[in-house]
Amino acid sequence: MTNGLGFVETQRVVLGTEDDPLVLACGRSLSHVEVAYETYGELNEARDNAIFVCHALTGDAHAAGHHGDPERRGWWDTLIGPGKPLDTDRFFVICPNLLGGCQGTTGPLSTDPATGAPYGLDFPLVQMSDFVALHQRLLAHLGIERLLAAVGGSLGGMQVLQWTVQAPDQVANAILVASSSRLTAQNIAFSAVGREAIMRDPGFRDGRYFEEEAEGERGPQIGLAIARMMAHITYLSEEAMTEKFGRRLQGEETGGQRMGLGVDFQVESYLNHQGRSFLDRFDALSYLYLTRVMDYFDAFADPTAADRVRAGGARFLIVSFDTDWRFDTGHSVRILRTLEHAGVPVTFREIRSPWGHDSFLLTPPGYHETIAAFVDRAHEVGLGGAS
Amino acid sequence: MTNGLGFVETQRVVLGTEDDPLVLACGRSLSHVEVAYETYGELNEARDNAIFVCHALTGDAHAAGHHGDPERRGWWDTLIGPGKPLDTDRFFVICPNLLGGCQGTTGPLSTDPATGAPYGLDFPLVQMSDFVALHQRLLAHLGIERLLAAVGGSLGGMQVLQWTVQAPDQVANAILVASSSRLTAQNIAFSAVGREAIMRDPGFRDGRYFEEEAEGERGPQIGLAIARMMAHITYLSEEAMTEKFGRRLQGEETGGQRMGLGVDFQVESYLNHQGRSFLDRFDALSYLYLTRVMDYFDAFADPTAADRVRAGGARFLIVSFDTDWRFDTGHSVRILRTLEHAGVPVTFREIRSPWGHDSFLLTPPGYHETIAAFVDRAHEVGLGGAS
Repeated sequence: MTNGLGFVETQRVVLGTEDDPLVLACGRSLSHVEVAYETYGELNEARDNAIFVCHALTGDAHAAGHHGDPERRGWWDTLIGPGKPLDTDRFFVICPNLLGGCQGTTGPLSTDPATGAPYGLDFPLVQMSDFVALHQRLLAHLGIERLLAAVGGSLGGMQVLQWTVQAPDQVANAILVASSSRLTAQNIAFSAVGREAIMRDPGFRDGRYFEEEAEGERGPQIGLAIARMMAHITYLSEEAMTEKFGRRLQGEETGGQRMGLGVDFQVESYLNHQGRSFLDRFDALSYLYLTRVMDYFDAFADPTAADRVRAGGARFLIVSFDTDWRFDTGHSVRILRTLEHAGVPVTFREIRSPWGHDSFLLTPPGYHETIAAFVDRAHEVGLGGAS
Repeated sequence: MTNGLGFVETQRVVLGTEDDPLVLACGRSLSHVEVAYETYGELNEARDNAIFVCHALTGDAHAAGHHGDPERRGWWDTLIGPGKPLDTDRFFVICPNLLGGCQGTTGPLSTDPATGAPYGLDFPLVQMSDFVALHQRLLAHLGIERLLAAVGGSLGGMQVLQWTVQAPDQVANAILVASSSRLTAQNIAFSAVGREAIMRDPGFRDGRYFEEEAEGERGPQIGLAIARMMAHITYLSEEAMTEKFGRRLQGEETGGQRMGLGVDFQVESYLNHQGRSFLDRFDALSYLYLTRVMDYFDAFADPTAADRVRAGGARFLIVSFDTDWRFDTGHSVRILRTLEHAGVPVTFREIRSPWGHDSFLLTPPGYHETIAAFVDRAHEVGLGGAS
């Protein structure tokens, strides 16, 4: 990746204060809300070239460029940059960390001003609409009234959809990749078992594990690793796993193999690595809160929602991947049908990709081309034409 | 179920002794092996009406009839009994608990004669061929040389397949339901995460948890419950979960619902119940050992295996279920193709069923009828004709 963005810095801003608290859907308020975000490209004078990127469950504000090591780049660096589909020569791209997250934006490990200690499980149960409400504050802070586009994969796409329901005038173009309008029982089940693994870990200590850190306790690391390992299975297609690992054993080439109950197969080693490395970058409480936001999300629960979206004038691009079984194409088709029924203009494309749900982070043929074409058209039409 | 078998008793027999130990595939021997088994119906004088039933991962010897409460019947009671597909008026049906299990047959919690204490992780890593070797001893004990049929679902079907490879002359008819000749990387991955949950549970204590029972410690119950909850998701189809639970909340009808991070959705309550009730009937070490047998099983790894099966003369019935994604129809088709290629007579049927992998324990239309027809034909042909 030599043609990408250079060094970028994560910025921080306070967007909820004691005088102007963020009032949440549950009725509670947050009197101090910090948001971590990054921007790429320049906002033009007309302020009509802003594209908002919403990250997935375990993503963060660092979507593109690097923080010092050009080899370690943001999670959507293939999509964002000069000449890329989200072309930073033309667009001003914004990506914040989510409310409830653990990567710079206020979440369960942030200090509760009322107590001077981290919230822990006293952090309010945030909802998808709260994500949007906070991001609207970020837009206001940046002096942007309306977005040329909002783009997100997985949970990020769910948030984009919520934005078009909640503030239909604010998003001219919505791009939902590998996303859903509401989870199935099976989707909820996988998240539920992950949460149970975390909450039943003795290290969880009723969510006060952070108090013990000084004494060398390490929190619910076993449960969090198990949750991640299990979730990771659902992010890959069966085909991708077969291709990548098959039934190959560890040390097979060197004859170092010995049958046991531990890590014998290469797929086991891979999952263990995934579980372990997750601990360095994610927090267990954020995992609980953010997965719960997904469970409760139901974009069209209000039967007038799709009509409101139509009135707002947003155009949609919905992309699914044929081997994604976490949010299979059926999820995308449900959104398509609901929006089309209400008269919303929607382009839908199922991309062939061997990699399952994770495809939204990769570059299967046709995927970025589809987004680029949609964004180029959005750019041509501009904010005026789309409203 | 009024037309089922009556009271049955689980029998026990010692089939490996110091003088005649069971030599395992790994090279180690077990000098004391007890087997728990049940039989239904009568062995005829010609000893040619025996049908062997192999249970699945968490099954046991109690396949049919009851142990005192006629409402609580064996796990395959719908299939086994007078007038049922495995008709006990005509057939002598045998079902033992597996080697390495925890329901009466020698396993990791059994006493190691060398130490006088439970084996724990010193129990040898058994393999599918060891299951068969022990069951061959049970047949010899019962005075049976050849089986009219061997029948199994899931892991049970894998064992039946192994039997036809290992002792091709001994099984005249093989019935494999929702089974596999070898697991995929995804199959292994799900089991691996379950094992990790168990082994990382502080209560596991390197597999010596049974030593602590007297002091009130309870072993790796968290890990075992998590493993079961996760596995259970894979036993049900997405459709069945949607049908059964959808997105319904607990206490929805009574208005008792409150949003939280715990058990809000009905599917969460169901999974919790599954995890909890599993603890009463299963042991963590057996779970580790038996899932590992499945991981390592590869029926046709030896390229001459299918030819040996053909030489033995067994006829096969292979049944899959269209919504089974644990062992999807592809697994059955791989067995079908391999056997057909070698000239083995195989009947294959994919049954429509909404219930996923668990269908093999249920009665979707056409399933029992298919087995009954195959077994009736086997009965007509008899042991002579099939060899």
